Amino acid sequence: MLDKMIYLDNAASTRLDEKVLEAMKPYYFDIYAVATSEFGYSMGIDAKEALQESRQTIASSIGASAEEIVFTSGDTESSNMAIKGVAAALLNKKDKHIIVSKLEDFPVLNTAKAFEKNGYKVDYISVDSEGILDLEELKNAITENTALVSIQHANQEIGTLQDIEAIANICKEKGVLLHSDATHSYTRVPIDVSKVPVDLLTMSAHTIHGPRGVGALYIREGTPINKWMDGGFQESNRRAGLENIPGAVGFAKAVELVTPEENEFLKSLRDHIIKRAEEEIPDVTLNGSRSQRVPHNANITFHYVEGESMTLHLDMRGFAVSTGSACFSRSLEASHVILGIGGDHERAHGSLRFTFGRYNTKEDVDAIIDAVGEIVEQLRAISPLYEKK
Amino acid sequence: MLDKMIYLDNAASTRLDEKVLEAMKPYYFDIYAVATSEFGYSMGIDAKEALQESRQTIASSIGASAEEIVFTSGDTESSNMAIKGVAAALLNKKDKHIIVSKLEDFPVLNTAKAFEKNGYKVDYISVDSEGILDLEELKNAITENTALVSIQHANQEIGTLQDIEAIANICKEKGVLLHSDATHSYTRVPIDVSKVPVDLLTMSAHTIHGPRGVGALYIREGTPINKWMDGGFQESNRRAGLENIPGAVGFAKAVELVTPEENEFLKSLRDHIIKRAEEEIPDVTLNGSRSQRVPHNANITFHYVEGESMTLHLDMRGFAVSTGSACFSRSLEASHVILGIGGDHERAHGSLRFTFGRYNTKEDVDAIIDAVGEIVEQLRAISPLYEKK
Repeated sequence: MLDKMIYLDNAASTRLDEKVLEAMKPYYFDIYAVATSEFGYSMGIDAKEALQESRQTIASSIGASAEEIVFTSGDTESSNMAIKGVAAALLNKKDKHIIVSKLEDFPVLNTAKAFEKNGYKVDYISVDSEGILDLEELKNAITENTALVSIQHANQEIGTLQDIEAIANICKEKGVLLHSDATHSYTRVPIDVSKVPVDLLTMSAHTIHGPRGVGALYIREGTPINKWMDGGFQESNRRAGLENIPGAVGFAKAVELVTPEENEFLKSLRDHIIKRAEEEIPDVTLNGSRSQRVPHNANITFHYVEGESMTLHLDMRGFAVSTGSACFSRSLEASHVILGIGGDHERAHGSLRFTFGRYNTKEDVDAIIDAVGEIVEQLRAISPLYEKK
Repeated sequence: MLDKMIYLDNAASTRLDEKVLEAMKPYYFDIYAVATSEFGYSMGIDAKEALQESRQTIASSIGASAEEIVFTSGDTESSNMAIKGVAAALLNKKDKHIIVSKLEDFPVLNTAKAFEKNGYKVDYISVDSEGILDLEELKNAITENTALVSIQHANQEIGTLQDIEAIANICKEKGVLLHSDATHSYTRVPIDVSKVPVDLLTMSAHTIHGPRGVGALYIREGTPINKWMDGGFQESNRRAGLENIPGAVGFAKAVELVTPEENEFLKSLRDHIIKRAEEEIPDVTLNGSRSQRVPHNANITFHYVEGESMTLHLDMRGFAVSTGSACFSRSLEASHVILGIGGDHERAHGSLRFTFGRYNTKEDVDAIIDAVGEIVEQLRAISPLYEKK
């Protein structure tokens, strides 16, 4: 059955590209030395060079220098390291005060909540109905003694892009460091840290057909940050742990495989699904922004039906789609993102997130929207909510 | 040239087994869903089952239950999570006091040093000339209010095995938690947590021909431990971050591939290299214990020569060998392990660590010891240290 499934959820971008595995293989089977074994040890030097080339590829993709990139085990570690590392470095220099947006994904949001328990003041900045950050509220919340601001580049559920340049300039003017979780925009929407004064940027391989368990953190030169994971002296003594060289090489290959043409194609799928849903299915709401949106995300509420029921019916028909965020799908809690943009529980529970990847086609989109239309009609026919309408 | 190299350093056990990659592939290309997407989503359920089966394999290998195993990004993260998570959970219940051995690898040793900077008292327990822990010193150092004891199972450089059962029983009697870094013994030397009352155990895939960037932490049921990496609710809300399912499956496969016969074979290689070195090369010292030793390690000091020079000459002849530990090889500092067992700087710098893996043969061992004999003779002929002898 799996062979026939069509994936339009976060798995769509998580499937490994075969070319990525081919790039990784030499570092599993031929050049498998520890990169730190650099004295009189040719394979160790080859391993180190591969690691450095991968680092350069990631750096070049955002206008950084290689020394500013640290490899991690993924976006969750990157964001933990960024926020906790900076907070530790500034503990006696700034106030115990950090600022995040209301829509952050769990690595940032739950780190912020952990900070609150440890005596930090945390401001959660509001967003408008499209998910766009209130810049005035941010300006008013920042003081020169704020330790760190962490505002995501793109949202994990509704795909809203923040004006990260404006946010970074506000932080820079106030002399406060900015971290941004770019997990859901990286390579899909350009960001150039040589122009945008963001200080730390979280990136991950798993959202762009790269390997699981690999991410990176951009750390602008001179940014005060303590070591978070203690141990060996890897990554210029910034992140301990045996280097995952096959992972780093695979990450770099995944970055190289993303093209502007592919991003345009993903955007065409996104716009097609939104257009067909709005034209053909009554009572739908696009969640997020029409213009400030990543190319590979469409999040739509189908009112009067449950997202869980829809995903179940879609699964039986061979379509994989998520409701809410990847992390939420384990619980039945309402999405803090939909609530954050002013939606109610009904809107949160009736939302489907479509995420597009390299292996999707226009035919997939047409097939799924046909199926969604039929399922929504069936479910509404038996919905007490819809009757009352 | 690489094709002709013979690896007898830590890379020997880091080379991925082809069977491991074959086991991982379906989770890269076919079942690549997020394991948490469990509502109405068949691929997510398949992914979750694969993760659970892998967890059960790791658990069974040490006599634990699956719920007691948390997957991590490797041994460094496992040890950080164990020590920092327990310390945070016990912050207001026990003294700011932890105990480690003098020979710990960097994840534990440098976490302990970081704790000292944060106001903790850390006791570093001595070892004898073979690297075996002084149990009396441990007993005297522990109080009922000690937060945690962390003693490695096997040493990373000299392969000395601690009597982890005796250590665990001492801790249990005193009512103090014990963490053990078993990175360098896992699957090579049995440990059964249903009999040995260790509370937390660090394991890693990269030392047994498994994938890089994957490890596990055993956490005995009921052990107080705070979440260290914040974010999503993965791993029963104990470790945040998208599950690396291909990695977990590869780790489990690597565990299954280790057999008692293989461990006996590795032991025969170890004993053969030690025998030939001692019989054929003058002025050598075996570092570590003859009897209490992992099967895949031999660490030998060749007096009056520099380990760095030996590795360089061996590399040119097509042999990869390490001096000191993997982490030390970046710097020229003397190994704290050799110093810890009472060796001086000369002994530390003249030591070679041979590590044996699945792909080594008796012929490799004979070839390398032939080469070592010749190189040592050459280097000694030009060594001012040797002249003075």
